[in-house]
Amino acid sequence: MRIADIILKKRNKGELSGEEIEFFINGYVRDEIPDYQISALLMAIWFNGMNERETTDLTLCMRDSGDQVDLSGIPGIKADKHSTGGVGDTTTLVTAPLVAACGGKVAKMSGRGLGHTGGTLDKLESIPGFSVFQEMDRFIEIVSDIGIAVIGQTANLVPADKKLYSLRDVTGTVDNISLIAGSIMSKKLASGSDVIVLDVKAGNGAFMRNPEEAAELAKIMVKIGNNAGRKTVALVTDMNQPLGNAVGNALEVQEAIEILQGKHLGGDLQTVCFSLASQMLILSGLAGTSGEAEKMLEEALKSGRALEKLEAMVKAQGGNPEVVRDVSILPQAETTEIITAEKAGWVCGIETMEIGYASMLLGAGRTKKTDPIDPAVGVWIHKRKGDRVAKGEALAALYVNKKDNLENVRKKVAGAYSFTEKEPEPVPLIYQVIGS
Amino acid sequence: MRIADIILKKRNKGELSGEEIEFFINGYVRDEIPDYQISALLMAIWFNGMNERETTDLTLCMRDSGDQVDLSGIPGIKADKHSTGGVGDTTTLVTAPLVAACGGKVAKMSGRGLGHTGGTLDKLESIPGFSVFQEMDRFIEIVSDIGIAVIGQTANLVPADKKLYSLRDVTGTVDNISLIAGSIMSKKLASGSDVIVLDVKAGNGAFMRNPEEAAELAKIMVKIGNNAGRKTVALVTDMNQPLGNAVGNALEVQEAIEILQGKHLGGDLQTVCFSLASQMLILSGLAGTSGEAEKMLEEALKSGRALEKLEAMVKAQGGNPEVVRDVSILPQAETTEIITAEKAGWVCGIETMEIGYASMLLGAGRTKKTDPIDPAVGVWIHKRKGDRVAKGEALAALYVNKKDNLENVRKKVAGAYSFTEKEPEPVPLIYQVIGS
Repeated sequence: MRIADIILKKRNKGELSGEEIEFFINGYVRDEIPDYQISALLMAIWFNGMNERETTDLTLCMRDSGDQVDLSGIPGIKADKHSTGGVGDTTTLVTAPLVAACGGKVAKMSGRGLGHTGGTLDKLESIPGFSVFQEMDRFIEIVSDIGIAVIGQTANLVPADKKLYSLRDVTGTVDNISLIAGSIMSKKLASGSDVIVLDVKAGNGAFMRNPEEAAELAKIMVKIGNNAGRKTVALVTDMNQPLGNAVGNALEVQEAIEILQGKHLGGDLQTVCFSLASQMLILSGLAGTSGEAEKMLEEALKSGRALEKLEAMVKAQGGNPEVVRDVSILPQAETTEIITAEKAGWVCGIETMEIGYASMLLGAGRTKKTDPIDPAVGVWIHKRKGDRVAKGEALAALYVNKKDNLENVRKKVAGAYSFTEKEPEPVPLIYQVIGS
Repeated sequence: MRIADIILKKRNKGELSGEEIEFFINGYVRDEIPDYQISALLMAIWFNGMNERETTDLTLCMRDSGDQVDLSGIPGIKADKHSTGGVGDTTTLVTAPLVAACGGKVAKMSGRGLGHTGGTLDKLESIPGFSVFQEMDRFIEIVSDIGIAVIGQTANLVPADKKLYSLRDVTGTVDNISLIAGSIMSKKLASGSDVIVLDVKAGNGAFMRNPEEAAELAKIMVKIGNNAGRKTVALVTDMNQPLGNAVGNALEVQEAIEILQGKHLGGDLQTVCFSLASQMLILSGLAGTSGEAEKMLEEALKSGRALEKLEAMVKAQGGNPEVVRDVSILPQAETTEIITAEKAGWVCGIETMEIGYASMLLGAGRTKKTDPIDPAVGVWIHKRKGDRVAKGEALAALYVNKKDNLENVRKKVAGAYSFTEKEPEPVPLIYQVIGS
């Protein structure tokens, strides 16, 4: 088998066999096939795509390229979740404690933020003392004891994805459904959970701009998960505005805590988190219907048990557990700046990516992997799509430490908003549930 | 400017600016841009193509990546020719002496054979003592004195092409018209001649399978040449059988000498060589019409002056000039094997690539650049398309030294022929003259 022939086959719209996919993935991971042949192949895949069979083979082969996490030491069914990434997208910090409070087991490996999106690890690290580095034995112990823990990916989890993603990132081959599905699902499968709930974002703050594309990605991922023997469900949810109101690390932790305290009820973040948690409970066999699941989740929230789960996890991972009652323990920005409306009207659109980049420019995010971040800064959205705004009213607040980019950031956030004179039609929040 | 953005632009069907093309070519030659980004870009170019402006910019930028040959020391107009490569394609060894005998100046840099195609340098080196390595001053002196010399490419001629071609070869991006045109024309332009005649092959022994594709390549190359201020003409010629009867290094030299001796008149090789030479004379201002040119060429052949030019060149480049009168000086194979027809009929097709590979397998060619070659071996075609064949009559002769591949080679050559029971329609030899 020769890699040059595999490139030509895919370039000429051929279907790659399982052996050919194994050959190029294994050869690449072992440094036997150079980057320049793989990048040409990735571009050919970008143009000609992969079918379901090829995408499944790719994913399984990537999964098998490194260690697989053995969660069998944790009693019960382990439920994982994954979001394809958005702005103000703090679902793990709300969903996982809720599920744990209902008897679920969430052994979660998360990532860091890059570009306009935040990462769960960065958010958690804004809690004083919290460590995302835990030995595997300790990780399993924490989940067994309290039902929830969040750590970084282990070093040798899906090395094929690390190499492929670095290469895709600089060769214009990121936005391909098969490659995205392979990247996400190989890590989910290697992470060892029994059931998987995916949150596939669609909109101007996500990689997938429209719900149809997002549903296509969701469908192939659900198929891969089920083909690999893991019960998998995907939600396609809206990312045409930040999901929560907070955008920035400590700010998002604060909002998550406040939701678990019973605030912001009926908001988009809480609604999506309940839907995700509901699917996790159903797939875990802890609830029979979504009605039943929703009731369990409401009870977990109202009773304070979900907040207690977060508190227990923070404590177990070395953080100050007081944070769940006193968010002022979180790092605070030196000043806040209010962005106000220049005229009255209804908010009809928010350039979500711009809000994400504004937060990044304030210091909350990274332009490259090695950049340091500032946990305290970010943006808090006060007006959302469909809200009525009076002239001079606050649209958003900036939480600021360094002022060098401030004018740019003000313009970005103010410019991200668009208005109409009539009340706009309400937009869907959850477009579709796939695979349930 | 970022190479990742240039890849995305081409991938998304954008037109690259001159600055963007310069950025990626220069960055690549200077090792500032890695192979893996260039190979992704090449694949994007393969899918989305380049327009005439982009292809011209690419070619000029490649030309400028290294030294350019200064032929101003040679009086008169310097004429170059180039064939896109075929089997039994010995045009330089016939055309260049003819043109020189009519007063033209041919300062030719040639290449070596690879795969199923032969190379002029390899063919010339089969003449005892002949050296393709000449200092630039000496090269210019020989062409000034006798009107003809053939050497290898100078070391720093179009380094961009050397890097790009090596990469294309292993990444499935060879067969793209813009990249082929850029590769050929950058070298022609850097080689310093004033006028350029191209022989673009079409058929089952060439990269371009049909005359339409070949004409497309010819047109863009003629435009690039003229855009760069060099009078350029292209012929589209047939490569659905070996052009000459000889396939193999010494064998092809023998056939070229025999044509210059006045043998094989009216054969395909002689006909194409006359057309090429005719265009070279017209573009050089030595003939006004093709009728006039043909007369000059006939006279040069009949008088023996063309053969004398070849003799003078062989002598000037250290070879044994006796060869032009006694071809037995050339290396001889130990044995010959005759391939005979199994039944009577008319030859209606020859798998030309198979004949080229048969010759390669006998030792006349290379599978990779570093392979040694055997100058004596090859194939001599006795029957061509449209020829009538009796059962048991010789189709071709194999010139053999090592017998290890012989059975395979016999099968290849015999299997390359196809027959009909009726006389087939004659096929065109020269499809089109472009740019005249």
